[in-house]
Amino acid sequence: MTETSVTHVPPLHDPEARGFASDNYAGIQPEILAAIARANGGHQAAYGADVYTQHLQGVFQQHFGGDATAYPVFNGTGANVVSLQAMTERWDAVICAESAHINVDECGAPERAGGLKLLAVPTPLGKLTPELVDLQARGWGDEHRAQPKVVSITQSTELGTRYSVDEIAAIVEQAHEHDMAVHLDGARIANAAAALDVPLRAFTTDLGVDVVSFGGTKNGMMLGECVVVLNPEAVRGMVFLRKLSMQLASKMRFVSVQFDALLSGDLWLRNARHANAMAVRLESAVGGVAGVEVQRPVEANAVFAILPPAVTEGLQKRYPFYVWDEHSGEVRWMTSFDTTEADVDGFAAALKDEMATDHLGRCERDAG
Amino acid sequence: MTETSVTHVPPLHDPEARGFASDNYAGIQPEILAAIARANGGHQAAYGADVYTQHLQGVFQQHFGGDATAYPVFNGTGANVVSLQAMTERWDAVICAESAHINVDECGAPERAGGLKLLAVPTPLGKLTPELVDLQARGWGDEHRAQPKVVSITQSTELGTRYSVDEIAAIVEQAHEHDMAVHLDGARIANAAAALDVPLRAFTTDLGVDVVSFGGTKNGMMLGECVVVLNPEAVRGMVFLRKLSMQLASKMRFVSVQFDALLSGDLWLRNARHANAMAVRLESAVGGVAGVEVQRPVEANAVFAILPPAVTEGLQKRYPFYVWDEHSGEVRWMTSFDTTEADVDGFAAALKDEMATDHLGRCERDAG
Amino acid sequence: MTETSVTHVPPLHDPEARGFASDNYAGIQPEILAAIARANGGHQAAYGADVYTQHLQGVFQQHFGGDATAYPVFNGTGANVVSLQAMTERWDAVICAESAHINVDECGAPERAGGLKLLAVPTPLGKLTPELVDLQARGWGDEHRAQPKVVSITQSTELGTRYSVDEIAAIVEQAHEHDMAVHLDGARIANAAAALDVPLRAFTTDLGVDVVSFGGTKNGMMLGECVVVLNPEAVRGMVFLRKLSMQLASKMRFVSVQFDALLSGDLWLRNARHANAMAVRLESAVGGVAGVEVQRPVEANAVFAILPPAVTEGLQKRYPFYVWDEHSGEVRWMTSFDTTEADVDGFAAALKDEMATDHLGRCERDAG
Amino acid sequence: MTETSVTHVPPLHDPEARGFASDNYAGIQPEILAAIARANGGHQAAYGADVYTQHLQGVFQQHFGGDATAYPVFNGTGANVVSLQAMTERWDAVICAESAHINVDECGAPERAGGLKLLAVPTPLGKLTPELVDLQARGWGDEHRAQPKVVSITQSTELGTRYSVDEIAAIVEQAHEHDMAVHLDGARIANAAAALDVPLRAFTTDLGVDVVSFGGTKNGMMLGECVVVLNPEAVRGMVFLRKLSMQLASKMRFVSVQFDALLSGDLWLRNARHANAMAVRLESAVGGVAGVEVQRPVEANAVFAILPPAVTEGLQKRYPFYVWDEHSGEVRWMTSFDTTEADVDGFAAALKDEMATDHLGRCERDAG
Repeated sequence: MTETSVTHVPPLHDPEARGFASDNYAGIQPEILAAIARANGGHQAAYGADVYTQHLQGVFQQHFGGDATAYPVFNGTGANVVSLQAMTERWDAVICAESAHINVDECGAPERAGGLKLLAVPTPLGKLTPELVDLQARGWGDEHRAQPKVVSITQSTELGTRYSVDEIAAIVEQAHEHDMAVHLDGARIANAAAALDVPLRAFTTDLGVDVVSFGGTKNGMMLGECVVVLNPEAVRGMVFLRKLSMQLASKMRFVSVQFDALLSGDLWLRNARHANAMAVRLESAVGGVAGVEVQRPVEANAVFAILPPAVTEGLQKRYPFYVWDEHSGEVRWMTSFDTTEADVDGFAAALKDEMATDHLGRCERDAG
Repeated sequence: MTETSVTHVPPLHDPEARGFASDNYAGIQPEILAAIARANGGHQAAYGADVYTQHLQGVFQQHFGGDATAYPVFNGTGANVVSLQAMTERWDAVICAESAHINVDECGAPERAGGLKLLAVPTPLGKLTPELVDLQARGWGDEHRAQPKVVSITQSTELGTRYSVDEIAAIVEQAHEHDMAVHLDGARIANAAAALDVPLRAFTTDLGVDVVSFGGTKNGMMLGECVVVLNPEAVRGMVFLRKLSMQLASKMRFVSVQFDALLSGDLWLRNARHANAMAVRLESAVGGVAGVEVQRPVEANAVFAILPPAVTEGLQKRYPFYVWDEHSGEVRWMTSFDTTEADVDGFAAALKDEMATDHLGRCERDAG
Repeated sequence: MTETSVTHVPPLHDPEARGFASDNYAGIQPEILAAIARANGGHQAAYGADVYTQHLQGVFQQHFGGDATAYPVFNGTGANVVSLQAMTERWDAVICAESAHINVDECGAPERAGGLKLLAVPTPLGKLTPELVDLQARGWGDEHRAQPKVVSITQSTELGTRYSVDEIAAIVEQAHEHDMAVHLDGARIANAAAALDVPLRAFTTDLGVDVVSFGGTKNGMMLGECVVVLNPEAVRGMVFLRKLSMQLASKMRFVSVQFDALLSGDLWLRNARHANAMAVRLESAVGGVAGVEVQRPVEANAVFAILPPAVTEGLQKRYPFYVWDEHSGEVRWMTSFDTTEADVDGFAAALKDEMATDHLGRCERDAG
Repeated sequence: MTETSVTHVPPLHDPEARGFASDNYAGIQPEILAAIARANGGHQAAYGADVYTQHLQGVFQQHFGGDATAYPVFNGTGANVVSLQAMTERWDAVICAESAHINVDECGAPERAGGLKLLAVPTPLGKLTPELVDLQARGWGDEHRAQPKVVSITQSTELGTRYSVDEIAAIVEQAHEHDMAVHLDGARIANAAAALDVPLRAFTTDLGVDVVSFGGTKNGMMLGECVVVLNPEAVRGMVFLRKLSMQLASKMRFVSVQFDALLSGDLWLRNARHANAMAVRLESAVGGVAGVEVQRPVEANAVFAILPPAVTEGLQKRYPFYVWDEHSGEVRWMTSFDTTEADVDGFAAALKDEMATDHLGRCERDAG
């Protein structure tokens, strides 16, 4: 079998079909796939001793400063659990928003695989504040209480919002005053930087954030996230924790080269800006539809809206997306690097269509 | 930036340089890379709800029978820890060879991330026997003793040996008699099947092996392993354990399609046969060199030999490889899908060269 | 050295000094100490195979019905962590009040030693309701979410309140509808039964509660708690989990015989009734003092009140007790089996004294 | 009910029946029970802030030097798991004898509750040597290998043997050279000191042992062990680890005062000497019986012997004891502080009796 024959095998899916379910429904941005191919061939030392992973250190340092060290891992849960273990003793605790991915979307991995105690705080928009952190920042020295040691924030948040630079600065300042370190879950950090229109370091290194879980998968990579240690004194045992947390890739060159493709130039920013712009377009397109209530500010690449249940049901038959809250009828739509203007316009048209059908149906029932 | 311009970025490494350090120093077999590209484009449901992962179920069933279920994960440690958790209660134990990867090469991941107790047994060639298993298979009902529940064997082993079909049959029979299940760590399962010249199911499903960690990375994939459940009654909670063990890929289609490329046709076998043949060629080439002692039978894609320390040191400057045992001077050489005959011959020539230099040096010292 | 000479060694503490800091500041109720002595002498099988532990099964069955099985352990954290592990798979979660001991007072033992994910719900009086449970009772089958499997309630609560029989019935009904089991943290279960004036089984076995952490230490024992399994189908691996959770006493007879002394007759009830009555007396005594605000209903053996900080400070010099909330100035006073009426009256007098001093001080400052 | 009436409740067991099953079949030495009573009455701060626990610090310092700090816990497994967690990072490993209690008798508590990786080494007599430690003391810096950080030895051992002072000195020296700390599991440390006829510090503090699990239960206490930290720099987070390991007693005064009774005078030594002497007497008494093979040197309070199976069976009907090895027929007999000379002589007579019966039976069968 030759390579030529291989390419004649048809794909099992429609490579032109796109929706708004999640930015991880998208595939691999072509430049990143090309980079994987470029790193192929020949032998390279395994487990991160390859030239691509070495080269990556400088790439991350360009963005995060000369003290940054990058530890590629497989996925976001892995990045978070490795980071938080490295930042804590066995008896420490992590303060986070109740809606944080680590708290609600990782099947208890932080607790079970990391032995971590989370101190979760309800927040209105997925964002902590010094005042909210204060609700849990206490009890040091009391052996009955898991010791608050890390504040973990998500930028941009699970709710599509983002912290301003000043908001993060205030949290870091308060955390450091209490001898706590700050972890930033940056599964969508590029979307936040693009939306804030500042360099990555402006809301991380420059403010004293200690460790970042840097997201690649949701911004066009095939797979891969990276623990970026900004403050070497905030962590211990990174390489061991990555291994024992089952996050050490043997052929790491193929993870690292993806980050290289993303971060050596401006691809990370182009991808994120595009996704954000599509979210804004989507908000505009659906915001004016009668009966659709957009919830929360659209500050990154997500739009949340409340729809009538029948509309959601109808629309999901045409485009997959998630219901965020069964009780309120809130749904989530996410854009990605490959969302097109036509995708947005088509989706908005479909939504209007379903709303009209629903309205008609209700009028008929009322009249019946 | 266009795709064309991207391909002009030169690679950082020499794509023609190969050695014998490990089969995970090799890159991506071209048909597998082509498959990744084929699965790209468009949106696909994340976390394994994509068509490639669904399709993969049938592919694995062709090899392992209609009850097989495949759960792609990131790496071998992940596959092992997920498998073993799914097969045990919190108080159970796993009997394994002392040289098993789970015991010596995973930085304690089974114990720490999985809460597993390993009962390790010294073995001469990395292979358990019913008699060796018996040394630990006891104490059921005694609350002081971690309860033996799984026997984990590695095929082919970390020492380059392989179990015969009958040898595995005997272990499975004995394990099942004691109500223990059998896990097979198949990081190099293809090499074993190729060497035994039997189908994959001949030493797994057909014998009653319960769960397999199926290796892809060492046989030409970019990354990816797969937990293959052969006996559904031997496991509980697979999808939850995969998630909480941080082994759930969001863009899973790109892991699954690699397995598809490997297993839909005979690529898995071609790769493994080739690697094995290169190991045999290497053994022949170095076996006759005076002063080189090949250790252990060469039964898969590894050759172990004892060299004079000065020879090892000199040879490592030309080819990277690992010293297996500092005390005895034993070294390990591994072949892979991309090893060429010229690679082997060149390496053997280099070895002879170093041996001669060393001999000369010793003669001179003796004469001096 | 004879026993007589031993008794001449004076104690290091004042055996007549008592306060209101906690019911675990009290010592051993004399009948229980006598029981320890009675079980002494001779040899008895270790680890629970002794006659006292065997006998204890029937004692607990008298209170909780013929299906009850009792597993003595060392302390309340141990009882809770063993219970909850026995009731869950590795991927399950426990719904509890945010103020629950397991959530705030065990330094993360459930998460770290048990691998448990807690889903904590804010509650006004430390009490869950079906509606509050509903906030977390969802997401079954979703691999990203720790699977709600147990509802854990505390009776009487950490806030001195108690559930009515009907309130628990409603929670159990709702939990069982969702295939969740119910755990009752009964560190102060005797105080609750005494206050409700019903048998222990009336709000446990009779309602379908599955497992109880039965408290002994706070009701006059030297040390010891007991996991009482009411529904054998709700647990797995009890004896192994007790051992691996480091809760298996070798000379268990001395823990079991204390429970025997407590529960064979009505000692458990006498102790609890007395403690509760002293709390009521305390509430009455301080309730009328101007400037003292009793918080929350006094439904067991705790009284919570808000005091001026200077009064708290002054009073703590005379009697040790805990500040419950630094922000609000709330303090907690607990009564125990050995609290006397004179203790209460003396304490109330001291409080009035401090209040008057404080009032005077403030008047002088205001006038100055 | 008065105390007098209480004492009329008869015990459920025969306080004069004693055997050789284990030193934890014995009860509470009377002086220790008297001490518990002495500490009773009045209120004392919980969780170790009482005067008895404070006083205990000085008592342990008299034995172990002025840097010693004592942390009472519930049982030996707890003492070991707390100690070893405090001495390690999450990625570290503990080298121990394969027969060590932590490896074989704690149902995996070190791995599961402590996240510890044990590197177990087969030993002939339960004793490590620098050479045996060397088999596992390697691989520092290799992220694939759990990092050896602690050497844990047991004194006296599970096999009734003991280390000489020099033997421990050699292990400590070698461990410290490799920047590893030394933990001593002293569940029977008193028996070792008594047998060696040296102070406790002679084979601990004076040699540089870092942490001791100090046994109380097997030497006459009701329950209680103590983590004694000799080198403060070898541990971190003791009080938190004790709490999260579920080993923090609320009424700690009653654990501490037992240690006070044991260690303030020479009770610990009297108890241990007596038990050891009874073992020597037992060895003499049975050593001469034809057909009984005493295994291993009797160096503390255990005697191991190989008996014909029928004799074991017959003898166990008269005295409970444990079969140590089903294959070889080896049995274990342990003496304790309350073993009398008459007990030993009676047991030896019973053994002779059973041997004779067995011999007769076999002769008859042979003749039949």
